[in-house]
Amino acid sequence: MRLITLGNGQRDGELAVVHPDGERCVSAREIAPTLQAALDAWDEVAPGLYAMANDVAGGRREARPIPWDRVRAPLPRAYEWVDGSAYINHIVLVRKARGAEPPKTLLTDPLVYQGGSSEMLGARDAFELVDPAWGLDFESEVAVILADTPRGVAASDAGKYVQLVTLVNDFTYRNLIPPELEKGFGFFTSKPATGFAPFAVTPDELGDTFRDGRVHLRLETRLNGERVGDPEAGPEMHFSFHDLIAHITKTRRYTAGTILGSGTVSNQDRARGISCLAEQRMIEIIEGGKPVTPFLKVGDKVEIEMRDATGRSIFGCIQQAVVEPKGGKR
Amino acid sequence: MRLITLGNGQRDGELAVVHPDGERCVSAREIAPTLQAALDAWDEVAPGLYAMANDVAGGRREARPIPWDRVRAPLPRAYEWVDGSAYINHIVLVRKARGAEPPKTLLTDPLVYQGGSSEMLGARDAFELVDPAWGLDFESEVAVILADTPRGVAASDAGKYVQLVTLVNDFTYRNLIPPELEKGFGFFTSKPATGFAPFAVTPDELGDTFRDGRVHLRLETRLNGERVGDPEAGPEMHFSFHDLIAHITKTRRYTAGTILGSGTVSNQDRARGISCLAEQRMIEIIEGGKPVTPFLKVGDKVEIEMRDATGRSIFGCIQQAVVEPKGGKR
Repeated sequence: MRLITLGNGQRDGELAVVHPDGERCVSAREIAPTLQAALDAWDEVAPGLYAMANDVAGGRREARPIPWDRVRAPLPRAYEWVDGSAYINHIVLVRKARGAEPPKTLLTDPLVYQGGSSEMLGARDAFELVDPAWGLDFESEVAVILADTPRGVAASDAGKYVQLVTLVNDFTYRNLIPPELEKGFGFFTSKPATGFAPFAVTPDELGDTFRDGRVHLRLETRLNGERVGDPEAGPEMHFSFHDLIAHITKTRRYTAGTILGSGTVSNQDRARGISCLAEQRMIEIIEGGKPVTPFLKVGDKVEIEMRDATGRSIFGCIQQAVVEPKGGKR
Repeated sequence: MRLITLGNGQRDGELAVVHPDGERCVSAREIAPTLQAALDAWDEVAPGLYAMANDVAGGRREARPIPWDRVRAPLPRAYEWVDGSAYINHIVLVRKARGAEPPKTLLTDPLVYQGGSSEMLGARDAFELVDPAWGLDFESEVAVILADTPRGVAASDAGKYVQLVTLVNDFTYRNLIPPELEKGFGFFTSKPATGFAPFAVTPDELGDTFRDGRVHLRLETRLNGERVGDPEAGPEMHFSFHDLIAHITKTRRYTAGTILGSGTVSNQDRARGISCLAEQRMIEIIEGGKPVTPFLKVGDKVEIEMRDATGRSIFGCIQQAVVEPKGGKR
């Protein structure tokens, strides 16, 4: 089952079920008004949503074209956004890029940061770039949306808390990171609003490509129409989503709708390209002595999607343009 | 106007208006079902809430005793919990305690971290201590709850985004901080769930003691019934709430209901005591060579409140006991 949230003038939008063609959908408001409402009562609500998805697929419910200009993030505001950094190759490259050492516990203790969850950007929402000097970058990631998750979950028991899977564009201001981390309190201002794929999907949509808490498919990123990376999201995810859940539940619990990210998907094989510009720039430094690729500028367009073996774009495509800020630069 | 959230079996509880005596309240469900719903439509909803508060105060609406065992956090789950560290004395003492230098930008660039907002503890909720070796500490703070707040707010314009004021007990696992900060991604596992005062109040309840984005009253903390601190929350708040709002809106916007904390209230005057045990332990190290005061243990009780000039406990009292974890230690 694939779900989408459509803008309806309300803060949390309206939940809809996606047709298998990925181009049409049916409002699910008769079952749950919003995705958060569905997650809050998943066991009661999910059977109705699955039945609707079956009816849509079987042609027993008429689906209408997805109004792409009204697509919002699956959760336009969320109670938590916790982002891991589970791909070792990314950590090593990006730390090298800013002259920082990888943590000593790189392979044994997961890295996660708490992100802001006030405003999640929809798949077609433009990103307003306030100051190009801040060094805007994309980060292409896989993310899961959790059920109510208690404290103290073992990795071996964590799979049952994964309710949905989606993709994330974790926008980052690279040049704001060093002064923020220098203060020791985390990334804060260096992490603006995050973008999301159109669809949040149940794990069964991924079949056996979702196993061991990892999605075993390639995550493709295009910049201005050109493919810049398509790394495998599975094998090099050192800490699986199950490991990350065990880690984040060490000292507290999470409410339904908490979003947990994988961190930038990254492979050691250079042929697989990059999922963020910081990696590209570091490779350029290693190979040629200096970075050549600039950070994002107004007019750039980032696209992120993941296809299954049949070529289907499972989560739909993130297509975000970088634009001038509407309200001026202050 | 003072507002309280009461448990009703729903995730976000039920909004109620508090009688001026602080002991009685009236359900506000006819106006707004929850505090989040009120904040989402504040301009439409607030007049009705104020009218109800007037009727309650004037005896035209019957108020019933507050069921203290059903008091929840004003926002039992919130979209963001952003915590500053605006009292320089606290930063200097606590960093000294863990052998870390204060950041170079201590006086010019505010420190804030992103906290988890899945589960906010009510004023009477017990805190389940999983492992005493983690070094559980309280932190007594003032916090504001924001209206929808755009990106790029100037400090001079920030006051209008402060919708409510409350108190916070920002529980912290001191012994988990050094390894977490070593990794560079923030406090994550060292910050478990946060406790809140019973009442969230509109700024007018504070009269001229709320000025320049600071609350000019003493914040009292008691441990096991004994006063351990009553520092002035106003003068030594180096960065006001207005400064903090300007800082956090540098790169993004915030949705209504975002909670913004002051950080641990702390005065240079030792006679004013402490608002967290880490400060007490550092003072002991400075004065006697080693810490004497232990961190919190099962059976301890933390109380935090703030009184106005008439002796009224403005926000009601945080009274949290430390208990064994219900679900075992795993």
